[in-house]
Amino acid sequence: MALIVQKYGGTSVGSIERIRNVAKRIVKTYDQGHDVVVVLSAMSGVTDNLITMAHQASKVPDKRELDVLMSTGEQTTIALMAMTLHDMNYPAASLLGFQADILTDNMATKARIMSIGADRIKTLISEKKIVIIAGFQGIDSEGNITTLGRGGSDTSAVAIAAAIKADTCEIYTDVDGVYTTDPRICEKARKLKQISYDEMLEMASLGAKVLQIRSVGFAKKFNVPIHVRSSFNEEEGTMVVGEDSGMEQLVVSGITLDKNEARLTLRKVPDQPGVSSKVFTPLADAGIQVDMIIQNTRSGGETDLTFTVNKSDFEQAKRIAENVVKNIGGEEVMVADDIAKVSVIGVGMKNHAGVAATMFSALASENINIRMISTSEIRISCVIDERYAELAVRVLHKAFNLDKI
Amino acid sequence: MALIVQKYGGTSVGSIERIRNVAKRIVKTYDQGHDVVVVLSAMSGVTDNLITMAHQASKVPDKRELDVLMSTGEQTTIALMAMTLHDMNYPAASLLGFQADILTDNMATKARIMSIGADRIKTLISEKKIVIIAGFQGIDSEGNITTLGRGGSDTSAVAIAAAIKADTCEIYTDVDGVYTTDPRICEKARKLKQISYDEMLEMASLGAKVLQIRSVGFAKKFNVPIHVRSSFNEEEGTMVVGEDSGMEQLVVSGITLDKNEARLTLRKVPDQPGVSSKVFTPLADAGIQVDMIIQNTRSGGETDLTFTVNKSDFEQAKRIAENVVKNIGGEEVMVADDIAKVSVIGVGMKNHAGVAATMFSALASENINIRMISTSEIRISCVIDERYAELAVRVLHKAFNLDKI
Repeated sequence: MALIVQKYGGTSVGSIERIRNVAKRIVKTYDQGHDVVVVLSAMSGVTDNLITMAHQASKVPDKRELDVLMSTGEQTTIALMAMTLHDMNYPAASLLGFQADILTDNMATKARIMSIGADRIKTLISEKKIVIIAGFQGIDSEGNITTLGRGGSDTSAVAIAAAIKADTCEIYTDVDGVYTTDPRICEKARKLKQISYDEMLEMASLGAKVLQIRSVGFAKKFNVPIHVRSSFNEEEGTMVVGEDSGMEQLVVSGITLDKNEARLTLRKVPDQPGVSSKVFTPLADAGIQVDMIIQNTRSGGETDLTFTVNKSDFEQAKRIAENVVKNIGGEEVMVADDIAKVSVIGVGMKNHAGVAATMFSALASENINIRMISTSEIRISCVIDERYAELAVRVLHKAFNLDKI
Repeated sequence: MALIVQKYGGTSVGSIERIRNVAKRIVKTYDQGHDVVVVLSAMSGVTDNLITMAHQASKVPDKRELDVLMSTGEQTTIALMAMTLHDMNYPAASLLGFQADILTDNMATKARIMSIGADRIKTLISEKKIVIIAGFQGIDSEGNITTLGRGGSDTSAVAIAAAIKADTCEIYTDVDGVYTTDPRICEKARKLKQISYDEMLEMASLGAKVLQIRSVGFAKKFNVPIHVRSSFNEEEGTMVVGEDSGMEQLVVSGITLDKNEARLTLRKVPDQPGVSSKVFTPLADAGIQVDMIIQNTRSGGETDLTFTVNKSDFEQAKRIAENVVKNIGGEEVMVADDIAKVSVIGVGMKNHAGVAATMFSALASENINIRMISTSEIRISCVIDERYAELAVRVLHKAFNLDKI
């Protein structure tokens, strides 16, 4: 008999009927003799409606009050779910963030969980109750309601699982697991049985929107096994676990694609100490996040400095860069927003030489030119021209044998 | 400089635009240098929508969870109001029931306030903040969310006013005060400048739906002056105050009408000890509230026993009464549901003989037959045929000179 945390997203609880379907799934687990703790998001659309209302009330809504407003979304869902379970003659009790002792810092609208007092949850479990907890919300040390930011319910679920030492944390969503790549781009995409926390972190930050990235970091820190699966069918999904869990490691587990970046190159800037700082300090001051940075040596005391930013920051970054080039005596700013970043990810590549070689040859075989390269311990990313993006994903998927797992 | 509690009902905060109008009224008081604490209801219609959802989720929604759900209504309003005030550059902070330390008993959906810890409210006031508190909700000693039942926001406001020793509690509603009678029935109805707690209690329980009755009891107990007024205009409303407040007492302050009762008469039942108990015990067991009870003596060891119940309980009461008559050997049950109860109310009648006489003569002057009479210290009620109800109100309004105050 296990202690299981189940988290259901907004789509899964998007109507009274869907709430009842989820309730059936919950009691199925409960009837198998397991202890079940459920974490819920707001019904889909509700959070957006609340934000719209807030913006009708105030151009820049006060963040503390925004959290008071937003937290009603999850409050509604947990009450309806607990009622539904009672209606099905199962014992259930809802807990709001403050009732479940989910203590956060005081950063309204993007709070971080500091601690979870597991006592009340455990007491309810010992009474054989199904505990239904509001995701996304907590309370700060001064008793203010806080929310964790978009997707925060995943983090709530994993943090609660860690606090009560759950055997597993099931994240139910509208996809049925983590895929080797986006099935809309590559029809041979396969669902992974397992993936490591680190791979999942790379996948999430690169745009696979299955799990909220912060929740994966939490799961890694507390070694909480996550089971990502669909709330619309009974199939096994993907386990997100530690590398030391005895899983058979694929060299490469997934291919991701990010078309949201733009590239800026500062041509022929002086190759002197302090130049990089002159470029990136004003960008940071403007709140612009820089992803890849590459600097090539040129002859003659000059260098080319290239970096990528999110497309939404592109125009602003361009203005800042042009100013900097003028001030430090560079030649010009070259820009491109028709680029794509394709990445291969896998903990296995740590122990396997040749992953980079395989990647570059595969891209070359289709005459895809590589504009930039960056690597981490378990990831290699190439910036290419946007028009080759989907082709690159498919050719890499094949090259790393992901078509056949 | 006064400490003022203002309570706005659901209609007054029924849209973002109306919330902004109320905000303007709040800051007007604040700008005069007063400390302002605001208690809000849910936006009109919201509570009903939540109840509908609850009944879709469960035929008999769990009461604890119903309170979790219902309390989101006021939570939404206070957040939007605080945002609106921030948007107008006024300092404001919202407080939920648990944050304002509104401790109640554990009777979900109809909890009673046990105590209010005024500290947090007072701290915010000392910071010159406008404090916006969710009405209708509290928390029990085990940390469960509770609600106070329909109209509970009035009670919240008065209880908060008592706890923080406010100078006055303004109840803003969609009527502009307490009238001598229903203006829809008697066009000469006048707005009262003042009314005593006891008169207001009689008025409220007899169907004048201006103030929630429990809030008036609270106000009387803690001697909180209530100012009932409209949120749609600037006029002075009606002060509800203690009798010792130096107010000039009218002999009769108001005429009320209740058409929601039905009458049952048990004819020729044995005039013996224990008979009344045999009649009213099964009614009480069925949860039927009995209002007036009258017993007339007949000759021959028999008596007629007449009582009134709410029309919604009429059929059930009739079945019970017929059973009882069969068991105790009475003759028959006579019923009438085309009756009306008209009452005159006034603390002044304690010191003035002849109020009953004036009432009976006035009714007689229009040939209105009185079917039953009951009295309290400050009220005389007559049951008459329903078809004379409005006429009776008008003739009494005139007889007690209420047309001219």
